[in-house]
Amino acid sequence: MNIKDLYLNKQVNDSVYQIRNASYRESEGVNGYYLMRLGDKTGQIDAIWLNTNDINLKVGDFLCVDGKIQNYQGRMQLKVSSAFKVSANSIDLNEYNMAAVEESVLKEKLTTYIDQIRIKPLHNLLKEFLLHELYKDFSRAPAATFNHHSYIGGLLEHTINVTDICFNFIPIYKSIKPDILIAGALLHDIGKIYELEFGESITYSTKGNLFGHIYMGAQKFQQACHRQVKFPEYLENQISHIILSHHGLIERGSPVEPKTLEAILVHKADTTDADANAFILSETESAGGNWSISRALGRMIYLETPPKFELR
Amino acid sequence: MNIKDLYLNKQVNDSVYQIRNASYRESEGVNGYYLMRLGDKTGQIDAIWLNTNDINLKVGDFLCVDGKIQNYQGRMQLKVSSAFKVSANSIDLNEYNMAAVEESVLKEKLTTYIDQIRIKPLHNLLKEFLLHELYKDFSRAPAATFNHHSYIGGLLEHTINVTDICFNFIPIYKSIKPDILIAGALLHDIGKIYELEFGESITYSTKGNLFGHIYMGAQKFQQACHRQVKFPEYLENQISHIILSHHGLIERGSPVEPKTLEAILVHKADTTDADANAFILSETESAGGNWSISRALGRMIYLETPPKFELR
Amino acid sequence: MNIKDLYLNKQVNDSVYQIRNASYRESEGVNGYYLMRLGDKTGQIDAIWLNTNDINLKVGDFLCVDGKIQNYQGRMQLKVSSAFKVSANSIDLNEYNMAAVEESVLKEKLTTYIDQIRIKPLHNLLKEFLLHELYKDFSRAPAATFNHHSYIGGLLEHTINVTDICFNFIPIYKSIKPDILIAGALLHDIGKIYELEFGESITYSTKGNLFGHIYMGAQKFQQACHRQVKFPEYLENQISHIILSHHGLIERGSPVEPKTLEAILVHKADTTDADANAFILSETESAGGNWSISRALGRMIYLETPPKFELR
Amino acid sequence: MNIKDLYLNKQVNDSVYQIRNASYRESEGVNGYYLMRLGDKTGQIDAIWLNTNDINLKVGDFLCVDGKIQNYQGRMQLKVSSAFKVSANSIDLNEYNMAAVEESVLKEKLTTYIDQIRIKPLHNLLKEFLLHELYKDFSRAPAATFNHHSYIGGLLEHTINVTDICFNFIPIYKSIKPDILIAGALLHDIGKIYELEFGESITYSTKGNLFGHIYMGAQKFQQACHRQVKFPEYLENQISHIILSHHGLIERGSPVEPKTLEAILVHKADTTDADANAFILSETESAGGNWSISRALGRMIYLETPPKFELR
Amino acid sequence: MNIKDLYLNKQVNDSVYQIRNASYRESEGVNGYYLMRLGDKTGQIDAIWLNTNDINLKVGDFLCVDGKIQNYQGRMQLKVSSAFKVSANSIDLNEYNMAAVEESVLKEKLTTYIDQIRIKPLHNLLKEFLLHELYKDFSRAPAATFNHHSYIGGLLEHTINVTDICFNFIPIYKSIKPDILIAGALLHDIGKIYELEFGESITYSTKGNLFGHIYMGAQKFQQACHRQVKFPEYLENQISHIILSHHGLIERGSPVEPKTLEAILVHKADTTDADANAFILSETESAGGNWSISRALGRMIYLETPPKFELR
Amino acid sequence: MNIKDLYLNKQVNDSVYQIRNASYRESEGVNGYYLMRLGDKTGQIDAIWLNTNDINLKVGDFLCVDGKIQNYQGRMQLKVSSAFKVSANSIDLNEYNMAAVEESVLKEKLTTYIDQIRIKPLHNLLKEFLLHELYKDFSRAPAATFNHHSYIGGLLEHTINVTDICFNFIPIYKSIKPDILIAGALLHDIGKIYELEFGESITYSTKGNLFGHIYMGAQKFQQACHRQVKFPEYLENQISHIILSHHGLIERGSPVEPKTLEAILVHKADTTDADANAFILSETESAGGNWSISRALGRMIYLETPPKFELR
Repeated sequence: MNIKDLYLNKQVNDSVYQIRNASYRESEGVNGYYLMRLGDKTGQIDAIWLNTNDINLKVGDFLCVDGKIQNYQGRMQLKVSSAFKVSANSIDLNEYNMAAVEESVLKEKLTTYIDQIRIKPLHNLLKEFLLHELYKDFSRAPAATFNHHSYIGGLLEHTINVTDICFNFIPIYKSIKPDILIAGALLHDIGKIYELEFGESITYSTKGNLFGHIYMGAQKFQQACHRQVKFPEYLENQISHIILSHHGLIERGSPVEPKTLEAILVHKADTTDADANAFILSETESAGGNWSISRALGRMIYLETPPKFELR
Repeated sequence: MNIKDLYLNKQVNDSVYQIRNASYRESEGVNGYYLMRLGDKTGQIDAIWLNTNDINLKVGDFLCVDGKIQNYQGRMQLKVSSAFKVSANSIDLNEYNMAAVEESVLKEKLTTYIDQIRIKPLHNLLKEFLLHELYKDFSRAPAATFNHHSYIGGLLEHTINVTDICFNFIPIYKSIKPDILIAGALLHDIGKIYELEFGESITYSTKGNLFGHIYMGAQKFQQACHRQVKFPEYLENQISHIILSHHGLIERGSPVEPKTLEAILVHKADTTDADANAFILSETESAGGNWSISRALGRMIYLETPPKFELR
Repeated sequence: MNIKDLYLNKQVNDSVYQIRNASYRESEGVNGYYLMRLGDKTGQIDAIWLNTNDINLKVGDFLCVDGKIQNYQGRMQLKVSSAFKVSANSIDLNEYNMAAVEESVLKEKLTTYIDQIRIKPLHNLLKEFLLHELYKDFSRAPAATFNHHSYIGGLLEHTINVTDICFNFIPIYKSIKPDILIAGALLHDIGKIYELEFGESITYSTKGNLFGHIYMGAQKFQQACHRQVKFPEYLENQISHIILSHHGLIERGSPVEPKTLEAILVHKADTTDADANAFILSETESAGGNWSISRALGRMIYLETPPKFELR
Repeated sequence: MNIKDLYLNKQVNDSVYQIRNASYRESEGVNGYYLMRLGDKTGQIDAIWLNTNDINLKVGDFLCVDGKIQNYQGRMQLKVSSAFKVSANSIDLNEYNMAAVEESVLKEKLTTYIDQIRIKPLHNLLKEFLLHELYKDFSRAPAATFNHHSYIGGLLEHTINVTDICFNFIPIYKSIKPDILIAGALLHDIGKIYELEFGESITYSTKGNLFGHIYMGAQKFQQACHRQVKFPEYLENQISHIILSHHGLIERGSPVEPKTLEAILVHKADTTDADANAFILSETESAGGNWSISRALGRMIYLETPPKFELR
Repeated sequence: MNIKDLYLNKQVNDSVYQIRNASYRESEGVNGYYLMRLGDKTGQIDAIWLNTNDINLKVGDFLCVDGKIQNYQGRMQLKVSSAFKVSANSIDLNEYNMAAVEESVLKEKLTTYIDQIRIKPLHNLLKEFLLHELYKDFSRAPAATFNHHSYIGGLLEHTINVTDICFNFIPIYKSIKPDILIAGALLHDIGKIYELEFGESITYSTKGNLFGHIYMGAQKFQQACHRQVKFPEYLENQISHIILSHHGLIERGSPVEPKTLEAILVHKADTTDADANAFILSETESAGGNWSISRALGRMIYLETPPKFELR
Repeated sequence: MNIKDLYLNKQVNDSVYQIRNASYRESEGVNGYYLMRLGDKTGQIDAIWLNTNDINLKVGDFLCVDGKIQNYQGRMQLKVSSAFKVSANSIDLNEYNMAAVEESVLKEKLTTYIDQIRIKPLHNLLKEFLLHELYKDFSRAPAATFNHHSYIGGLLEHTINVTDICFNFIPIYKSIKPDILIAGALLHDIGKIYELEFGESITYSTKGNLFGHIYMGAQKFQQACHRQVKFPEYLENQISHIILSHHGLIERGSPVEPKTLEAILVHKADTTDADANAFILSETESAGGNWSISRALGRMIYLETPPKFELR
C-alpha cells in the first residue's frame, strides 16, 4: 500500500518500504526497539518497531512490514507488528524515488535549460558535465540526509526547482546576466553528489564530512572548466562564486558572501525551495487536524482545510 | 542632467535634484557642511556641500546645484560648488520618481493580479481597498527610508516585484492556494503607507515609530475585512498571518513566524526583492571599477563588465 | 490531599488533580505511559503513569489518582499506581485555581487601580473594558501555557503583580505619567485572553498561533478606544505602544522597542514578575535538598533553609 | 546659567560647567577642535569648541564658557565661542553633583534601610562598612563612566533607587528574605568605588580595568565579613552571590547567573534603574520636538508633551 | 579488566569500575534503569543497567559488574547484567586516577616550573601556595565535572599541560614576561579546587555554584599574596588578571577580557588543552570505525587508522 | 629615522616610509587630507597629512616625509608637514619588511621542518611545493590586509610561528600524527598567496574576494597532490581538512569544523599567533602610558612597565 494512502487506524499488510532513517533505542527490559522513517515514492512515515531482538537495520534497507497506523503526538506513526528485510535486488528502485516529478520530466527540463544558454563555451561545459559525465549520479543523488529532498532523485528535483525560480527572475531584474544565473542555479549544489553516499543508504561520505559540499562543488566545477579548451576565466570565477556563496552568509557555512546579483538570487532561490519542500514534506506527515509540528522547520504549521468560498 | 548620465570629473550646472538624505556636519572653522544623497528618477548620488552658512536643508527639498563629480572611496560624489533651494511647486514630481517602471504600468499589473483572484469576497476587498480607498497613497509611498525602494513610488514597485515572484511559484509548488498567496503578496507591506510620511520628505510617522508597519498593516487589513459584509474569517486569518510573519523570524521583528506555505513564500519573495533592489541601487552609485562598496548590503560587490563571449 | 502537603514517600489515595501537561510516550513493550504535570490550587507536581493501555488524557482533564511520591532527579514525582478520569461537572473549579491570591482580592485591587486613574476618558475605558466587557475572561485566563502563571487565573494575578511593581515606581521616577503607566500595566498582556484557550484545557487558539498576543492585545485595546466617544489619540498611541513593546526587544518578539519611560517600566515589571513567578513555582516543585533544577529558568536554584540568626 | 535653563539659540556668557567627556578631533587646517559633554548639577549638554590651539582638556576640568545653543541632529549643542579653564579650588563641587536628590536625603534613606535589617550581624556589618568605612567614597562615586548615573554621587543615587525598588517587592513576593534582599541591593554595585577613579575626573582605575567591579565588589564585601567576628557564612554566601550575579547573564559579564529569588530581584531592579536613568538623562538632552535620539538606549525616544485631558 | 582492553562483544566479569556519571531513568514497566559512565585509570565507558529495583547509585561509587560490551550508536556501551556496590575503603584509588601521567611525574614538573621563576617573592609564593598549602587538593582535584579532565588528578594534569604550552611560547614571542606567564598558567584554574567537591564523587560545591571558579581562584590567589610580606602589587594585579580573564571573552564567563600578552596566551593554552583532551577522551570511547560522535565537542570525529606510508 | 625610534614631539625629516593604509577625507574647506598608516621594517605609525591638494596616494607607495610626532587619543601620530612620493625602484624593499625575523632565518626553519617529515611522498610534496614552486610568493606574501602580519613577509613569519607552536604540541599529546600536524601547519594559510595581491600594495585579488583563501588553499594543495605520482589519498584528505577547518567554526568562515586532533591543534595555534601578533603590533603603536587602545583586538591593553623585582 502506498504511503500517501495510509490513514489513522489503517491496517498495513506485506507492504515493502525503504528505510530513510533508523535509530535503535533501548530502555527497560532485555529487548530494544527501532524508531524509523519509512518511505516509498509517494511519501514518508514515522515507524516504531518493538521487540526487535536480532536484526540490524540501516538506512536504505527495504522492509516488508505488517502493522497499523497510530497517532503519535499529532503525526501518523506506523506501529510495526512484524517485519523482515527484503533484498534490494528484488526491488524496482523507481518505486522508492520520492521526487514529485518523474525523472524523465526533470531530465527534459534540465536539457531545455542547458539549451537556452547562449554563451557557447558555457553551453558546451554544461552539456558535457551535467548531461553526460555526471548525469547518472546527478539524477540519483538526494539533496540532503534529513531536512529537504532527502530521497533518491532529490538533488535533481531541487536543482530544477531552483532553476525554475531563477529563470523567473530574469524578466523582473533587468541587469541579470541570464546565462550566468541559469548555469549557477544548475550547478549550485553539485557538490552534494560527492558529499553524500547514496548506494543503498544515504549517508555522508568521508570526503563529505571532511570537506563539505560547498568546497567540493566549486572544485569539481573548476576541474570541469579546466578540461575544456580555453574556458573563459570570467565565467569560471562568476559561477564558482555562486557555488561558494550559495548559503548566503558566513555563519551558514559559505566561505564568502554573495557579491553579485546572480549569487544573491541563486542563494534566495535555494533557501526558498528548501523551506517550501520542508513544509510540503511536513504536510504529508501530518496525522490530520489543523495543526502539525514540522520537525524540519522547527515550528507548528497550519493545515486547516479551507471552507468553500463563493467564486466569481 | 540626469543622474544616470554623470561620470567622474563631469561638470554639473543648474541641475535640479531632490534631497533623499541630508546630514549637517561641523568641523574646524566657523562654517559647517552637508553630506547628502541627491536623486532624480534615473538614480541617486552622494554629495558634499561645504561653506553652507545659512541654509537649512531637509529630505524632500529640491536643490538646483552647480558642481563636479569626484571619486570618494570608490563611489561617485558630487562636490557642490553652489546651490539654492527650489520650490516644490515648480517641480514635475514624476521626474523624481525612481521606480524602474512607470506608475501606469505598475497600476495595470496590480489590476491584472486583482482580476485573477477567483474568490469573490477577496476579489472585492482587494479592488475596493487597494484600487480605490488606498490607491493614491499606495502608489506614492516609498518602501523604506534608506535601504531599498526608498523613493516615491517604491512601495508599489516593490509590491509588484514581490507579487511577480510569488505568482511564478504557483506552477512550482502544487499545494499553493493561489488566491491567498497573491493577496498576501499584494498586501504584505501595506503598513508602510502608515509607517512612513512622504509628503515632501520621507520620514517615520509618529505611529510608525510607536507601532511599526507590521502591526499597522495587519490592523488596517482587518479593518478593511470588517467593512465587507461577512468576509470569511478563514481568509482574514490567513492573510493577516502573512502580513504579521513576513519578516520571517521573531528576531527580525515578526511577532509570529510563517506557519503556512503561502506565508513562507511571501517572506522569501520579500527578502529576495529587498536584496536585489539594494544590489541594483548600489550598482548605480559605483564610481566605476570592478568593485564597489554596497552600504545597504554591507559588503563589496563585484561589477566587472563581462568580456565578449562566443555565442551559439 | 493538597499538593503542597505531599512529601517524599507519601502515599496518595483518591486524590483528584487537574492535568496541566501530559505527553504520551512509548518504549519497549506493548503499552505506553504518560508523563504529566498535575495541579490543584496549592501547587503542581510531575507524575508518571505506566501501563496506561486505553486511556486518552488531555490538558485540563481531572484525574482521581492513587500512587506514591518518589524522588526523580531531585524533584518530587508522583508515581501513579491507578487512576481514572473525573468529569469536570463534578468539580469545584476554584479548588484548581493556583493563583497565590483569591480572585476577590485581585478584583478589588484591580478596581482600586482603575479608580486611581484621574484622566476621565481613560478611567471610563478601563472600567468598561476590564471590569465589564472582559472581566469574566480576564479573571479566568492563564498567563502562559508553560513557564509562569500557567493556570486558571494566572493572567489576573500576573497583571496585578506587574501593576503593583509599576505603581511603586511612581514616587521613584518623577517624570512618570502615572495614569499611562498604570493603564499600560493593566492592559499589557490583555492579548493573552485571545491567544490562549482555557475552557477545560490550556492551549493556543488558532488566532493565538497565527497572530500572537502582542498583536491581538494592541488591536483589542484600540477597538475598545474606538468604541468610546472621542477617546484621545495621544492616550491610544501611548498605551498601544506599551502593549506592542512590552517584550522589550525586537529579538523577543516585540515589533517595536520601548520608546517611552512608561513602556520601559512596564517591560521591566513584566520580566521581573515572570522570572520571580518561575522561581517560586520551581521552589514548590523541589524534592527537598539545597539545590533543585528550575526548568522554567533553565538553571539550578539554591533553596537552603537559613540557619537561625541572632536578631536585634 | 544652569544647564536645565538653556534652550535653542540661547546666548551663554561666563558660565562655568564641568567636562564630563572630551575628545579632541582634527581635520583640515592646522587647528583641531573639541567635542565635549558639559554638565552642572541640573543636567548635561553636548558642546563643540573650534579653534582650540593650545589647550589640553580632560574630564573633570571646569570651563568658563561663552557661546550659543544650536540644534545638532535633534539634540541641543553648545557652540563655544571662547572658553578658559577654571581651577577646581575655586569651585563649589556641590553645584556639579547631578544626583536628582540631595546627598543628605540619600544618606538618611541609606540609614533607614540599614536600620530595618533585623539580623544583628548583618546590621552591624552594613553600618560599619557602608556608613563608616566606605561612606565618603560611596557617596561620591559615580555609577558609570558613560551610560547612567555617570556623575559624582551617581552610585549612591542608583543604589538607593535599586533598594527602593527591591523594598517594594517585599509585600508582593512572600518568600523573599527581606534582610538579604535589602543588603544585596545596598551592596550590589559597591565594586564601582574601586573600579572607577573620581577625583577630578571619572575614569577606570588600573584595577577596574584588570578586575572589573563585579569581582572587586564581592571581594571587598567578603573582606568586610571577615573583619566581623563570626559573620554567618550563609549570609556571606547569599550576598556575595547577589553581587556576583547582578548582571543577570553570563553574556553580560556575571561569572554566575542568579540562583536565588533575591539575586533575581536585585538584578531586575538594577537593570530597571539603569534604563530608566538613561531615558531620563536623554530626555534632558533633547533639543525639543517630539522625538530625540537616546545614545545610551540606542534608539529614538518619544517626548511629545501630552495635551490637556478632562480629569475626573 | 581495564577499560582500555574492552572491545565489542567482550564479556566482563567481576570488574570494579568507578561511577563517573549516573542518571536514573524510568519507562514502561515497574522497574527503572541506570545510564552511567564508568571509569578506571585507563579510560571511561558508557554503561546501561536495567532492572535496578532497589539500589541508589551516585557519582564516585565503585561498582563490581558483570556484563557484555555492545555497540550503541557508534560508541561502546557496557550492558550490565548484574552488579553490586563496593566500599571505597577496599579500593586503591590510584587505580581510578585517569591522568595520562603519573602524579609523581606531574609533581616533578610542577616543582621544576616553580624553580624556574626568577622573581623571588613570586617564587616564594608559588612554592608555599602550590607545593605546600594546597598541594594535596591541587593534585587530587578534577578539572571539570564533565567535558575535559573530569577525573581525580585532572586539574594537575591540565595545569601542567597548559604550562607546558605556555612555556613553549617564550622563545616565540620576545616580549613575554616569562615569570608572569608561567605563574599565571600554574594558577589559572586554581579556583577549581573550591568550585568542585571530589571526596568520593565529583560535584559542584555550594560555593562553586554560587561564586564560580573564576572568582574563587582570583580571591584565593590574592589572599595568598596578602599572607606574604610586601608581595609586589604589580604581580598580584597581573596574575589576578590572568585568572579572571582566562575564559577569553565576557560571553564565556570572564568578567574581564585579556588585556596583557600573558593573559591572551594563558587563555589560548587553556582552550587548546581543553579541546585536545576532549578529543582524546572521545577517541577512547569510540566503538571502532572511522567516525565517532564526540559529545564533548558536539561533532563527529575522524578516527581512520592511517595506511602504511613509505618512509624516508 | 626608523619608526621604532620615534617618540612624542620628535621632529621627522626626510624619512622614507611605506604606506600600509591610506584613506582620503574631506571636510570644511576646499582641500582634503589623508589619514595613513606608515611603516618600515621596525614598526608602523598612524599619520595625518593636511592640505594635500593634488596627490593620489595608494597602499604600497613610498613617501618621503617631514613632520612631527603628536599624541592622538593615546597613540602616537605623525603629523606630516610636507611629503612627496618616491619611486619604488629606488627603494631597498628589505628595509620595509616588518617580519620580526630575517627571511633567511625563516627559510632555514621552513627547510628544517620539511626535513623532519618522515613520510616520503609528503616530504617530497612539501619540498617541491613550498621550497621551489611557491617559495618566492610564500616568502613575500602578507598574512592579512589589516589585523595581523599585514606586511610583506608576514605570511611566512605567521606560518613559522604556527608551526613552532604545533611542533611543541607533539610531546604533550601522544596521539598526534606528527607529519600531518607539521604539514598542516605549514600549509594552513597557503591560500593567502592567492587571496591577496602584494606587488606594491596589499589588497584583495578578484579571486580572493570571490573565493576566499580557505577555498583556494585547499584547492591549490590538492592540485599539488595530483601533480605527484600516487600521492596517498589519506594524506590529501587529512591535510585538506586542516586547511578547510582552520578557522575553527562554521561561523568564522570554515565550511567544516575540525574533526581530527591535528585540525583542532592547527586551528588553536593559528588563533594564538593571530592574537599575539595583534597585541605586539598594538604595543609598538602606543604613545606611552600604562594603557593603549588595540584596534585589532578591540579593547584596551595594559602596558605598564614592571618595577624592579628582587631576583633569586
